[in-house]
Amino acid sequence: MTYCVAMRLDAGIVFLSDSRTNAGVDHISTFRKMTVFERADDRVLVLMTSGNLAISQAVRQWLSERTACDGATVWKAKNLFDAVTVVGDAVRAVYDRDAEHLKKFGVDFNCSFIFGGQIKGEAPRLFQVYAAGNFIEATPENPYFQIGEAKYGKPIIDRVLAPSMPLDEAAKCALISMDSTLRSNISVGLPLDLLVYEHDALRVTRFAQIDYRNQYFEMIHNTWGARLKQVFGEIPDPTWGTEPPPAASPDYRLRPLANGTAAGAQHQPPRAPSPAGESAKGDVVFQTVAQNPVRQQRH
Amino acid sequence: MTYCVAMRLDAGIVFLSDSRTNAGVDHISTFRKMTVFERADDRVLVLMTSGNLAISQAVRQWLSERTACDGATVWKAKNLFDAVTVVGDAVRAVYDRDAEHLKKFGVDFNCSFIFGGQIKGEAPRLFQVYAAGNFIEATPENPYFQIGEAKYGKPIIDRVLAPSMPLDEAAKCALISMDSTLRSNISVGLPLDLLVYEHDALRVTRFAQIDYRNQYFEMIHNTWGARLKQVFGEIPDPTWGTEPPPAASPDYRLRPLANGTAAGAQHQPPRAPSPAGESAKGDVVFQTVAQNPVRQQRH
Repeated sequence: MTYCVAMRLDAGIVFLSDSRTNAGVDHISTFRKMTVFERADDRVLVLMTSGNLAISQAVRQWLSERTACDGATVWKAKNLFDAVTVVGDAVRAVYDRDAEHLKKFGVDFNCSFIFGGQIKGEAPRLFQVYAAGNFIEATPENPYFQIGEAKYGKPIIDRVLAPSMPLDEAAKCALISMDSTLRSNISVGLPLDLLVYEHDALRVTRFAQIDYRNQYFEMIHNTWGARLKQVFGEIPDPTWGTEPPPAASPDYRLRPLANGTAAGAQHQPPRAPSPAGESAKGDVVFQTVAQNPVRQQRH
Repeated sequence: MTYCVAMRLDAGIVFLSDSRTNAGVDHISTFRKMTVFERADDRVLVLMTSGNLAISQAVRQWLSERTACDGATVWKAKNLFDAVTVVGDAVRAVYDRDAEHLKKFGVDFNCSFIFGGQIKGEAPRLFQVYAAGNFIEATPENPYFQIGEAKYGKPIIDRVLAPSMPLDEAAKCALISMDSTLRSNISVGLPLDLLVYEHDALRVTRFAQIDYRNQYFEMIHNTWGARLKQVFGEIPDPTWGTEPPPAASPDYRLRPLANGTAAGAQHQPPRAPSPAGESAKGDVVFQTVAQNPVRQQRH
């Protein structure tokens, strides 16, 4: 599998990809998922790929080595919309060539892409391209895209990211999101490719390939986990007592209406009735039923 | 969708489920996903369900209202293994009745279950049951199971959970895991059913249904997000300078080998070659190539 994330900020775009590819647990390899189309002072375009490796590579190679029938290429595109259209066309060209054959082997045409950057004359833009070759663009309300194993690393982004965030802080956010994913999913792996594109730079100025020896990522890995545990430990546990807390203290009882007071139905678990004949064991005391515990016959 | 999680600890088992069901965005409903089979002083068994609602309900009703051909029920089972076998049989009975008909409408037989608790005479046990009716049991090395939208809430559990954790601390962990899921996935929703089973209690002693008015969950929701942001802010951002840090300071440069020193290939982004004819624009300065920047001809 894969995890790639890109964030479009006021100050530029952060791109981060992992490099693990697997086809079953006995086919684990390292393939970089980021490709940069750079012509200094004119354009920087970054493509990140997820899904079937042969499809992803075919799309990348098509973009690098072929020219569409109408002569369009990402190198000639006048703006990002033109460029992402070329990417979508490349996906469709690969589909036309491969999808039918893959189908014979029960393989879906599974791929998705993040594509963004800047072409001289307009602001940086960011797109997500689907397997059908269609695409959506990032907006201030939804400034980031993820492809691949996106869910593990989504909560931290949802909690902290804003378009006004400085680029390096957003890079930190992306790396924490990646660290959470690495921790929980073995199909995502180091090394990482991190490219931080600065608004109007029109060339690659900040790129790093990050492996387990990188001191910054090691610090993120150790510090984030340790601080999370610390915060976890500092948050009070719930209580189940029937005594109300002292005045002015928050009430962290999870069952404030317990035995001896009027408990609402919401404090009863959804119980299955025992089948007829099972009551042979006799009456049962429902400890958690409200009021004073009473003996109730089950059916 | 759904999110349910259960954790088997030395002190008992924590069960937590949400209650949102959706079939498309215009069919969103509230259905509780937890069912308790309780006979005080003898057994407490908890079933949580995920997947197709009709299948989940059919399994629950089959368990509540039918008896298998051999007379086995969860009420009569002598131990948890017998009981979870009854659950697996119920899943297969529903499959035999419904799967073929669902297939005609293009609907998969999609369901999964968490089932656990304690029957007098043995320790508490926890199982995950698959749609095929087979199952696995939690162990000290893998003390928890999740079903439904499991990925968002997995990192926090992986980081803090241990079998020696007190029950209420584990309940806090489950609630934080749920909060992260609620924040990032609209198909999971309040109210929650939380059941904390205490080892050898053999009855339900700690249960709460939690909605947005619950002060403890509100505190978790606000505090966890705020503290996460605080920790995020306290972790240093990466730097990109070429100057090494002062002695005894950690080196958080993401490109320690920059222009002017010998940069390895790992500090180059994976660049696509520009196609023949595109070099017409002339030579390009590769700013990020190592050594002193040199003018290089592209192809």
